[in-house]
Amino acid sequence: MEKELFVLLFKKLSELGEEEGSALLSRGIDVQSVMPTVVEIVNDVQERGDRALCDQTERFDGVRVGRFRVGEDEIEKADEEVPEKLKKALEIAVENIAAFHHQQLDRDLWMTQTSPGAMAGQMIVPLDSAGAYVPGGRAAYPSSALMTVVPAKVAGVERVVVCTPPGKDGKVSSITLVAAQMAGADEIYRVGGVQAVAAMAFGTETIRPVQKIVGPGNIYVTAAKLLLRSTVEIDMPAGPSEVLIIADYTAEPEVLASDMIAQAEHDPQSISVLVTDDEDLAIATKVEVEKQAKEVARREIVKKSLAKSAILKAGSTEEAIGFSNSFAPEHLEIIVRDPMTVLRQIRSAGSVFLGPYTPVAAGDYASGTNHVLPTSGYARVFSGLNADAFVKKITVQQISKDGLRLLSDAITVIAEAEGLAAHAESVRKRLVERKPENL
Amino acid sequence: MEKELFVLLFKKLSELGEEEGSALLSRGIDVQSVMPTVVEIVNDVQERGDRALCDQTERFDGVRVGRFRVGEDEIEKADEEVPEKLKKALEIAVENIAAFHHQQLDRDLWMTQTSPGAMAGQMIVPLDSAGAYVPGGRAAYPSSALMTVVPAKVAGVERVVVCTPPGKDGKVSSITLVAAQMAGADEIYRVGGVQAVAAMAFGTETIRPVQKIVGPGNIYVTAAKLLLRSTVEIDMPAGPSEVLIIADYTAEPEVLASDMIAQAEHDPQSISVLVTDDEDLAIATKVEVEKQAKEVARREIVKKSLAKSAILKAGSTEEAIGFSNSFAPEHLEIIVRDPMTVLRQIRSAGSVFLGPYTPVAAGDYASGTNHVLPTSGYARVFSGLNADAFVKKITVQQISKDGLRLLSDAITVIAEAEGLAAHAESVRKRLVERKPENL
Repeated sequence: MEKELFVLLFKKLSELGEEEGSALLSRGIDVQSVMPTVVEIVNDVQERGDRALCDQTERFDGVRVGRFRVGEDEIEKADEEVPEKLKKALEIAVENIAAFHHQQLDRDLWMTQTSPGAMAGQMIVPLDSAGAYVPGGRAAYPSSALMTVVPAKVAGVERVVVCTPPGKDGKVSSITLVAAQMAGADEIYRVGGVQAVAAMAFGTETIRPVQKIVGPGNIYVTAAKLLLRSTVEIDMPAGPSEVLIIADYTAEPEVLASDMIAQAEHDPQSISVLVTDDEDLAIATKVEVEKQAKEVARREIVKKSLAKSAILKAGSTEEAIGFSNSFAPEHLEIIVRDPMTVLRQIRSAGSVFLGPYTPVAAGDYASGTNHVLPTSGYARVFSGLNADAFVKKITVQQISKDGLRLLSDAITVIAEAEGLAAHAESVRKRLVERKPENL
Repeated sequence: MEKELFVLLFKKLSELGEEEGSALLSRGIDVQSVMPTVVEIVNDVQERGDRALCDQTERFDGVRVGRFRVGEDEIEKADEEVPEKLKKALEIAVENIAAFHHQQLDRDLWMTQTSPGAMAGQMIVPLDSAGAYVPGGRAAYPSSALMTVVPAKVAGVERVVVCTPPGKDGKVSSITLVAAQMAGADEIYRVGGVQAVAAMAFGTETIRPVQKIVGPGNIYVTAAKLLLRSTVEIDMPAGPSEVLIIADYTAEPEVLASDMIAQAEHDPQSISVLVTDDEDLAIATKVEVEKQAKEVARREIVKKSLAKSAILKAGSTEEAIGFSNSFAPEHLEIIVRDPMTVLRQIRSAGSVFLGPYTPVAAGDYASGTNHVLPTSGYARVFSGLNADAFVKKITVQQISKDGLRLLSDAITVIAEAEGLAAHAESVRKRLVERKPENL
C-alpha cells in the first residue's frame, strides 16, 4: 500500500472523463459558502471600528491586541533579529522586483497627434493610498510583503498600508516586518482576515481607509474583497495556488517532479498538472513524484494536493497548449525544445516560466515578476498584480484653433445626431472671431 | 422672476458651506436603492434565459421582441438610411479613436534583464470576448458604440458583443447600428437594461456570455454591473456626467458658459463647476450661462442640472487646483495662460481638456480619447476606458543555468524562511550536474 500513498490522476488527455476534466477546468472558488460570516464581520467593523477589530482578532487569532499599529521600536527590534543572510536575500528580491515593475510603468505623460492640430495623450498619476494584505499567523510570508508593497511604491503611491495577522503572542513575525519595511511600507498593522480588509475599506479610529486593497489571502479574505468591491477597488479574487507544466522529451523527470511537489507543499487545495506528449517522461515523472513526495517535510499537505493533481499524456504539443489555454493556469512552465514558439500560442496564464532553469520558485521570490497572480481560471480575464494596478491613466487633449476647425464637422454632426445641440454649440462658440486681445 | 429661472451656486470657494461642499464632493451614486429590482431581473435572466429577456424587454421597453440578434439585413438597411455626412463624421471618429487607443497598447512582448542571466518580461494577450452596453431607447448614442467597440477591437478581442435597448417599434436606431458595425462589432442584440447585463454575464440560449462588460448606462445598468462583478469583469461604475473648469483671465465667458450648458444638457443630474481666481470672469460667465440657458433646446434638463452646478471664486489657481483634485471630475477643462503647468498638478480626473480650443465635446466624439470615464469621484481610483481594459498582461521569465545559480541563494533562503523547503529543492535539483545529453 506504501506505493498508493501518493495518488494523482494519470491519463491520456483524450481519455479524460467529463467529471475529471471539470474538476481540473472549473475550479472556481465558492466564496458564497463563507459570505454570511464575512458579512457579519464586515458589518461589525463598519459599525464599531477599532473595538470590532479587537474582538474579531481575539476571535480568530486568539489574542487581544492593544495597539494595532506596529511601532518603530518593534521594527528596529525585528531588524536586529533577522539574520544577515536573509536580509541580503530580501534585498536582492526587492531590487529585482523594483527593476521589473519599473519597466511595467508607462511614460508619465505622452501625447500624439490624432488629427492635424489635435494632440491626444495620457498622463499617469499614482493612487494616493493602497493597502496590502499579507498573510501570516502561523507562518511568515515576507515575499508577499515585497510583492504587494514594492509595485505600489514603484508606481508612486504615497501611503502604502500593510495589514497582517498577529501570532498568538500578539506579534507580527520579524521577517515580515523587515520585508515590509525594506519594501517601503508606510504603516504596518497587526490585524488580519476579513476584519483587516473591512478596516482598510471603511477605516477605523486608527486605520485610515485606502483606495485599493491588494494581496493574497484565504477564501474569507477573498470573499471580503469581493463583497467590498463597491467601496474599495481590489486586485483580483484569489484561490489555491497551481502550476501547469507543458514538457517534452527535453525535460528532466526529477526537475518536473520537484516543481509539482513544490506546488503541492503550498496548500492541500493546490493543483499541479503536467501535460506532455512524451509517454516515457510522463511515467518517469510519476515515479519521481512518488519518490520525492515521501521525502518532503510537508508530507500530509503534499499528499492531499497531489490527489487533486494530474499527469496527462497529450497527443502533441499543440494538444497540450490547447489544454493549458482552457485551464488558464496561475503558473505555467514551458519546458520544451523551443519554449518561445509555445509561448506565443499561450492565451491565458498568470506568469510563464520558460526552459529548464526557470522554476516557479524563481518567480515566487527573486526573478522580479510578481507572484500575486490569478488562480482558479481567473487568468482567462485577469492579469497578475502589476505596477499599473497602482496608477490611474488620465487622458489629455489639446487642440489648436485650426485643429478644432478641421474636426468641427465630425463633432457637430454626431452631437446633433445624438440630440445634443449645446455640444455642437460649444464648438461653434470657439470658432467665432473675437477681438485678438481676448484670445 | 425670469432671471431666477436658472439658479446655480455662486460663491467664494473659501465660503463654501459644509452641506454645499459635501453635495459637490460626495456625489456617489446610490446603487443600493435600485438593487432589489436589479436582483429580481438578474435572477430571472439566470433562471429563464431568453424567455426572461423577452418578458423584461416588454416590461421596460414596451415591446415584445421575437429575435434579439440584429440581422445582416437590418444592418444593411440602416446603412442605406444614415446620411453620408453622418457616416463621414463617424468614420473620422473611428479613425481618431483607433489611432489613440493603439498608442495606449504596450508592446506585445518585451523582456528585460533583472539579474545577470535572468530575463523577465510581459506578454499582452487580448480577452477572448467583451460586451459593450450602448444606451438607447428614445435617443441614439452612436458615439458610445464607437467608444466601447473600437478599443476592444484595437486590443484584439475576437468577439465583441453590443447590447442596446430597442425602441417602441422593436428596432435599434439605424445610426447606432451603423456606428457599431463601423467600429467592428461582431454581434449586436436588441436588449437593454439590467437584462442585457445579466444576459452577457450568464449567457442565454441566443447570447453567449462575455468575459468583460463595459460601457455607460443608467443607475440600473451600473447596479447590475456591480452586482455581477464576481461573475464577469466590468469597467467601472457610472454616474451622471460632469465637468469642472479651471479658468483664469485668459478665458472667454461665452465659451465657458457654452461648456457648462453642454454638460447640463446631458441629464438633470449632470454637474458643471467653474472654479476661477478671476471675479470678473465668474460674474460674466454667470450672466452668459443664464443667457445661453434660455436659448437651449433641452431647457428643462439644463435648468435642473444647473441647480446642482456651481461657479466658485478661488483665491488663486492653486486653490482651484486643490478643489479640482478633491472633486476628481470626469471631465476637466483647464483654460488658463499656461495649462501644461496646471496639468502636472492634477491628481484625479477622467479626461483633461487643455486650452481655449479644446471643448469636452471634442473628446466626446472625435479627438480620439475615450468618453467612457469615471464619474461621481471614481476618478480618484479608476481610469477611463482604455485599450488596456481589454488585454491581459502575462509575465514571462527565462533564466539560464548560470543565472539561476546566481539567484539560487536569494530564492532558497527566502523559501526556507517561509517554511517552503520543496521550493528551495526545486532550485537545487536544477543545479545538480547531469549527463550533458539530458540538458
